[in-house]
Amino acid sequence: MVKSIPEMVPHIAFGGDYNPEQWDEEVWLEDAKLMQEAGVNLVSVAIFSWSMIERNEDQFDFSWLDRVISILHDHGIGISLATATASPPAWLSKKYPDILAVQPNGVPYQPGSRQHYSPNSKRFRNSVEKLVKKMAERYGNHPALKMWHVNNEYACHLAECYSDESLEAFRKWLRDKYETIDELNKSWGTAFWSQRYNEWDEIQFPVNLPTFYNPSQKLDYKRFMNDSIFDLYLLEKNILREMTPDIPIFTNFMYEFKPLNYFQWAKELDLVTWDSYPDPREGKPYRHAMHHDLMRSLKNGQPFYLMEQVTSHVNWRDINLTKGPGEMRLWSYSNVARGGDGVMYFQWRQGRAGAEKFHGAMVPHSNNPESRTYQEVKQLGNELKKLDDLVGATTDAEVAIIFEWENWWAVEHEGKPHNKLSYLDQVYQYYKVLFEQNIAVDFVHPEQDVSKYKVVIAPMLYLMTDKTADNLQSYTSAGGNLIVTFFSGIADENDHIHLGGYPAPIRKLLGITVEEFAPMADEQSNMIISNGQEHRTTHWADIIQLEGAKAAAYFKDDWYHSKPAVTVNNFGKGRAFYIGTNPEEAYLNNFIHGLLEELKISSPMQVPNNVEVTERKTKDQSFIFILNHNRTEVTINLDKTYFNCLESKDVSETVTVPGTDLVILRSDIKS
Amino acid sequence: MVKSIPEMVPHIAFGGDYNPEQWDEEVWLEDAKLMQEAGVNLVSVAIFSWSMIERNEDQFDFSWLDRVISILHDHGIGISLATATASPPAWLSKKYPDILAVQPNGVPYQPGSRQHYSPNSKRFRNSVEKLVKKMAERYGNHPALKMWHVNNEYACHLAECYSDESLEAFRKWLRDKYETIDELNKSWGTAFWSQRYNEWDEIQFPVNLPTFYNPSQKLDYKRFMNDSIFDLYLLEKNILREMTPDIPIFTNFMYEFKPLNYFQWAKELDLVTWDSYPDPREGKPYRHAMHHDLMRSLKNGQPFYLMEQVTSHVNWRDINLTKGPGEMRLWSYSNVARGGDGVMYFQWRQGRAGAEKFHGAMVPHSNNPESRTYQEVKQLGNELKKLDDLVGATTDAEVAIIFEWENWWAVEHEGKPHNKLSYLDQVYQYYKVLFEQNIAVDFVHPEQDVSKYKVVIAPMLYLMTDKTADNLQSYTSAGGNLIVTFFSGIADENDHIHLGGYPAPIRKLLGITVEEFAPMADEQSNMIISNGQEHRTTHWADIIQLEGAKAAAYFKDDWYHSKPAVTVNNFGKGRAFYIGTNPEEAYLNNFIHGLLEELKISSPMQVPNNVEVTERKTKDQSFIFILNHNRTEVTINLDKTYFNCLESKDVSETVTVPGTDLVILRSDIKS
Amino acid sequence: MVKSIPEMVPHIAFGGDYNPEQWDEEVWLEDAKLMQEAGVNLVSVAIFSWSMIERNEDQFDFSWLDRVISILHDHGIGISLATATASPPAWLSKKYPDILAVQPNGVPYQPGSRQHYSPNSKRFRNSVEKLVKKMAERYGNHPALKMWHVNNEYACHLAECYSDESLEAFRKWLRDKYETIDELNKSWGTAFWSQRYNEWDEIQFPVNLPTFYNPSQKLDYKRFMNDSIFDLYLLEKNILREMTPDIPIFTNFMYEFKPLNYFQWAKELDLVTWDSYPDPREGKPYRHAMHHDLMRSLKNGQPFYLMEQVTSHVNWRDINLTKGPGEMRLWSYSNVARGGDGVMYFQWRQGRAGAEKFHGAMVPHSNNPESRTYQEVKQLGNELKKLDDLVGATTDAEVAIIFEWENWWAVEHEGKPHNKLSYLDQVYQYYKVLFEQNIAVDFVHPEQDVSKYKVVIAPMLYLMTDKTADNLQSYTSAGGNLIVTFFSGIADENDHIHLGGYPAPIRKLLGITVEEFAPMADEQSNMIISNGQEHRTTHWADIIQLEGAKAAAYFKDDWYHSKPAVTVNNFGKGRAFYIGTNPEEAYLNNFIHGLLEELKISSPMQVPNNVEVTERKTKDQSFIFILNHNRTEVTINLDKTYFNCLESKDVSETVTVPGTDLVILRSDIKS
Repeated sequence: MVKSIPEMVPHIAFGGDYNPEQWDEEVWLEDAKLMQEAGVNLVSVAIFSWSMIERNEDQFDFSWLDRVISILHDHGIGISLATATASPPAWLSKKYPDILAVQPNGVPYQPGSRQHYSPNSKRFRNSVEKLVKKMAERYGNHPALKMWHVNNEYACHLAECYSDESLEAFRKWLRDKYETIDELNKSWGTAFWSQRYNEWDEIQFPVNLPTFYNPSQKLDYKRFMNDSIFDLYLLEKNILREMTPDIPIFTNFMYEFKPLNYFQWAKELDLVTWDSYPDPREGKPYRHAMHHDLMRSLKNGQPFYLMEQVTSHVNWRDINLTKGPGEMRLWSYSNVARGGDGVMYFQWRQGRAGAEKFHGAMVPHSNNPESRTYQEVKQLGNELKKLDDLVGATTDAEVAIIFEWENWWAVEHEGKPHNKLSYLDQVYQYYKVLFEQNIAVDFVHPEQDVSKYKVVIAPMLYLMTDKTADNLQSYTSAGGNLIVTFFSGIADENDHIHLGGYPAPIRKLLGITVEEFAPMADEQSNMIISNGQEHRTTHWADIIQLEGAKAAAYFKDDWYHSKPAVTVNNFGKGRAFYIGTNPEEAYLNNFIHGLLEELKISSPMQVPNNVEVTERKTKDQSFIFILNHNRTEVTINLDKTYFNCLESKDVSETVTVPGTDLVILRSDIKS
Repeated sequence: MVKSIPEMVPHIAFGGDYNPEQWDEEVWLEDAKLMQEAGVNLVSVAIFSWSMIERNEDQFDFSWLDRVISILHDHGIGISLATATASPPAWLSKKYPDILAVQPNGVPYQPGSRQHYSPNSKRFRNSVEKLVKKMAERYGNHPALKMWHVNNEYACHLAECYSDESLEAFRKWLRDKYETIDELNKSWGTAFWSQRYNEWDEIQFPVNLPTFYNPSQKLDYKRFMNDSIFDLYLLEKNILREMTPDIPIFTNFMYEFKPLNYFQWAKELDLVTWDSYPDPREGKPYRHAMHHDLMRSLKNGQPFYLMEQVTSHVNWRDINLTKGPGEMRLWSYSNVARGGDGVMYFQWRQGRAGAEKFHGAMVPHSNNPESRTYQEVKQLGNELKKLDDLVGATTDAEVAIIFEWENWWAVEHEGKPHNKLSYLDQVYQYYKVLFEQNIAVDFVHPEQDVSKYKVVIAPMLYLMTDKTADNLQSYTSAGGNLIVTFFSGIADENDHIHLGGYPAPIRKLLGITVEEFAPMADEQSNMIISNGQEHRTTHWADIIQLEGAKAAAYFKDDWYHSKPAVTVNNFGKGRAFYIGTNPEEAYLNNFIHGLLEELKISSPMQVPNNVEVTERKTKDQSFIFILNHNRTEVTINLDKTYFNCLESKDVSETVTVPGTDLVILRSDIKS
Repeated sequence: MVKSIPEMVPHIAFGGDYNPEQWDEEVWLEDAKLMQEAGVNLVSVAIFSWSMIERNEDQFDFSWLDRVISILHDHGIGISLATATASPPAWLSKKYPDILAVQPNGVPYQPGSRQHYSPNSKRFRNSVEKLVKKMAERYGNHPALKMWHVNNEYACHLAECYSDESLEAFRKWLRDKYETIDELNKSWGTAFWSQRYNEWDEIQFPVNLPTFYNPSQKLDYKRFMNDSIFDLYLLEKNILREMTPDIPIFTNFMYEFKPLNYFQWAKELDLVTWDSYPDPREGKPYRHAMHHDLMRSLKNGQPFYLMEQVTSHVNWRDINLTKGPGEMRLWSYSNVARGGDGVMYFQWRQGRAGAEKFHGAMVPHSNNPESRTYQEVKQLGNELKKLDDLVGATTDAEVAIIFEWENWWAVEHEGKPHNKLSYLDQVYQYYKVLFEQNIAVDFVHPEQDVSKYKVVIAPMLYLMTDKTADNLQSYTSAGGNLIVTFFSGIADENDHIHLGGYPAPIRKLLGITVEEFAPMADEQSNMIISNGQEHRTTHWADIIQLEGAKAAAYFKDDWYHSKPAVTVNNFGKGRAFYIGTNPEEAYLNNFIHGLLEELKISSPMQVPNNVEVTERKTKDQSFIFILNHNRTEVTINLDKTYFNCLESKDVSETVTVPGTDLVILRSDIKS
């Protein structure tokens, strides 16, 4: 049976991507020594090594990789071994051009960067299968092997393919889903614009169209591509599971990443890992934090690994700002504070050639051991050794936000009342309010059991299945507090309207009908009045008719003035709130704050502004993280004596946290 | 012989597009009853029904449509029957891929939205022919049939095709036009850049070029595509005329629509109809009004139908604002006020699926008969019944503006002195001044007889044929007042320069020579001085030499200061004005106002700002429309007693018009 | 042996492109007479005449061109005869479609504009060869022939081709360069992202990639395309040299033109000529001046021809402003002042048809000999006759700026720390400071001997070969003053990092190590402090460690405050300055001004602001040009008596230059 991550790596994992094939062999030993010095205990190897391992079809050369792994193992460094399938070699596409993904204009992608394969190419899948088996055969029993890193950042550049083979696969996927063409016609609403199909092979991709696509077809295309790529992952995973049943398997996720339904994927991963590259220019810790929380939520709270971050600066933005002293360390701990058991980087040694040579690394171009970059890495690596007893600790949250990839796809399709709204921004908006009050938040799938949460928030849940509507209803009637925001409950899983007054499937739950939408132009706004206070609102106004609910706020201006903007409805033992507009942050702060207070949901510790506080717990111990995002120090009152983990000493009454710094306070949990 | 529209529909037509194939049959009867209640007397049927009618090649199923039409007829609702050719079914392009239009990169468009056919596909034309004959056979004698709606919004998404078959057709079109390749070489100026052709089949489309196209070739390509699509219309029209000689035939036009030369098309329509979707965000009634006036002018003042508008909001803008209470009604009457005898919508029932499901309709998603949307529809539909005696009434205008599609094409081609000028904006600018003074305006083709107008305005008439020059000369010398603006009379019908000093063909008429153009950058401006007053001017300055004309305004600054900016020349019994720059609105207001006063051209009634006044007349009666675009009421003095049509009572001395409302005042014309 | 330019044209050349094939023959004689009157002594003929000369394959018609040249010769006008290969005729690409260049999506360019050929098409090269031989045979001995104008503005629209034939050529070019595939793998760093090649024919173009290209591959592609086009030039040049050994040969260059390495090209030209179209909207004479200086520098100071400029306005910008009175003359003299021995225009007679008909010319559309345009041309043409003794005069500069095309290509590739920096803007910035102090500047290739200059500036010389590093080191150690700016010396000729601390190859020379880059966002800035003065700096900060150098300025803010921003290092007998940031102009002014003063480098004459001063010298005489770019007159004190060339009289004590005007002061050089 597969071993747990803490069994394989009983530490906070620390290390990074390691690409020794880019360097002469004499550097390898130097690397291993520097890694040891820096506290590295895990490196990712072979991610882009296909062309170095399989030099030509069926000609494998593992000798160099054997040596690399042996050196690492000798220095006590474990490996997260990639299956090397992320970037197919040039000989492969020359021999089998059908492995190439194809652009909407019919032109194939070419080798010369990476990820140019089509997930629907049978030939490509064959080649992957052969390589993965070879890797598992060769290294499956190596004592350095801690986990399998499958492929790399699936779909990061290429989430759509328009090859003939993909078209065949799309038609097959549709046939499997709908069984009859009549069912497809119904689900796609093809009576509109004379789009009816007689045969499966009349179906084309939703591209190269004179005007708006069929949104149901487009939604299915997104599902199909997600499934195609997922199936490619499963191909590797199943081989590895069979050949090395005890080794954990994962692939690395990305943030704000729309094409892949990570809730679906996470079920088939033993560990959630992700790659995080916040822009120092934004300097907004809440976004970074939300990504951590989402990743932790994908496998029900199981700790995750931050698999890639950068020490200093990336190279793929227009302007790539660098992290100042202390920032990399603080942001690394923000990850640990929210459930991260791994702190890894792209990459170990900064490249000298290629497209990413200006991407920062643990060892910079200067190769200077006194460089700020390497020194900060070394400090952090050695510091993390103090946190072994944190490994596996979890987070308790009383608030959940619903997040759903299919909704993301559907709600951002063209042809909506307001086409400049972003699903992610709507979610961020509610998350931010909670983050700034240091309230722990889980993200949940809309159809999952949410009964353990005191508050559930559903921002812009446009696509709503009947099952979700039932779930929300059960949750609320059992005593939950549900917050639903505008443009929710509009369409079903085929992106067809729920008829009979918006949002039809939860009208009773909310006690309202939305009769019309009144989107606002960029330059427009309105005010909402609540308890005598006025707040600005923008983008959207629902025209709400009360059918049992009470108004909690009204619009002030325009033809719909005096109509409800926010409502609350008692439903069973619980309450359902509806926010039918996009109010400014101050309103949401008041609104959420009032609710949290009433429900006695609070932060683990009271802290000044711009200080992040979280708590992780093991069976016996609590770890409170206090991260100071201010540039100046803050002092915090303590209710008891804690153990300051990084300073390895007790602290009581107050603790002072310098600017851009943190403390971790451990205490026993009384049972 | 074809019957007149009033013979077929002796009312203000009221109704909309009706797409029953998107709904279960049980809804159809409910629809008919609701229509009756709402005063609907005409609906457009079968526009996107090809795939439901011809289920596969030569397999026709009219049964459902028979039932629909029968229900409508039973409820006293006439049909404007579409030929169903607007969106070919998927089986057709699968079987005959050559029907697909092709993009400049050679990639065919695909089914999955609509209008993906090439007008030059012989195969497509064959299929259209078959379908239209079937439709005419089936319904040509149906008593519900009021008119034929051919295709739908020709070219709205696809006005260019680059298929091989289109290339053959283009070459044939050129051969028909020029007869010899030498004549083409001359007309295209191919001595430039070594572009000479020896053979017709050397000619390519003006795309995929390393740099600037040949403007004469591009102009011919635009003519060719217009003619190709027109020919497709004629194919249907000729079948229908032959098979159903008494039924009026039309297709629906669009506004601000550049690809099709509607002056050419209107000759072959029995009724001008058009689709109007002004953005509520703009809130500028003059633009909407100009479209009405243009549509009325296309068939010499014959009343037109507004064939599509929306009750509430569209779904294809980035942000789709909704019309507030009363706005839809007011804008509907603006159409009637300017010559519209039909008030129709897209569409009857709001769709539940497909790309347009968020486009408003007469019956909204809620299906609630108490909804604001349906209530406003019902009010209007029943109110319009009071206006039967208005049907067929016409508009007298003393001012005409020249508008020309070929000029529009040519003047906006690349490579001009100022490439950010818009022909439409130049026309709008002059129209707006007249609109705000409530002066009736006709639009005229430059080669048509304009002798009945007191004033003719030719904004930026870059492309000017000798025939046009003669026409303007005759008009003026007979006593007309001609206003020509900058960059007019520059090129001939091949887009070759009229040599010898601009604007060569009307230099004598204007009494000037323009020696040079001095375009201004966005951040630049100048002042013009006229009668001691200064006005700002932008974009363009002509360097004018007087050759008989007098200066009416001078430039103030820059190296051409003190040179004429506006001139007037006595010519025969008339006068020719020239405006050699782009002055601010206040100047144009003064300029036009002075001229109108002198010529005793005035509004039908004196009204406050932002109130629109028009007059329509039958043989015996005058109808004065007073539309109040203000949000607050206005009171207007009356010179006599009128009959207030909508309130069905006499009114005298004053009439008060509430905000966003209107009155229609009828009086007898003394003969 | 080839004759010198002054032998062929012992005057300031004056004339323009002449395209008689666009006009009826009766105009030709009128043209010649007007040219004579205007002082024209040279015209460029046959540039776009291929289709008129070779009417179909191997069917040549020279009769019309014979007549044209004969008329010109009869009027004493020489010809710069084009080889007519710039725009292939339509019959050629119809017969041999493989001559067409191909877009990245695989779609060939088409005839209908110009320059649609692929430089790598063997068939195209054959056709060119035939035509050039015919031209040389026909006119090689004609007494009117002064020089050969090969093709026209190579690559101006089309600098990339993706045809199959180009791909073969690219692979061959790579094989010739690298000999073994292993060497290519090493030079391209293909160990990165699994990009290793086994065979040459696995290599593709760096397009149609899912993400970032390989920068080494892209750099080679740019080199390859430059070489392909250069080889096409050499094909013509070699034929002409062999058949007409005494006739000078050139092609015309462009400004701010990145695709072609003009330092490489200039070696194979007998005369540098270029086409200059500054935007009157910018009104910044320093940019125009820099182009002149660069062109003069391409052949080590040999006078060049301004082969194209416009009298009034171009037609290819969005808004095409016209030159006011005197501006064309002043800018023409700016060219002469900086080494131009030719003042030529595009074109003689303004076209009546085609894409460039709104491009100004010497004879405007009005054909009016009294027009401002023609009058200014005539004045200038006759005035230039006074400057025969200037022909061949050269410019002495004590300051050089390094300029390099391969660096331009490499430094602007994607994936850099700051991707919004422009190489050209960095160069302009330093040039501008020198221009405004009226200091003569040469441009130099980084590997060329620069020992004669007192100051050498290397702005952003990212790509630095070892040879360049040695060159800079030798220069400085021998007593030179070297200024290097940030992001220099980073990569080698393969775009691989020079490891070991930036800028590794010149760290010792500069006495520093740059440890990190800290790019700034658009909205960010810092201050630098130098001698108590503060100046704003933007875009970039280097984190510098002093290793022998002294700091000349420090950063004020951010985490790297107090670290050096500008340094100076004594090296051998010289000094090496390093500017590790992008300071505002005022700082650079002070910095450069101080250095010039110390080194006694000064302007030929002290003048007010916005007055341009240059000096050209023959063996015996000095010509000082004083160009007044102000609109008002300036008066300048003279140190002695000069001969005012244009007024043909002596002047002493003071000379007054009207606004937008100039004087040329000649004096003897005492030997």
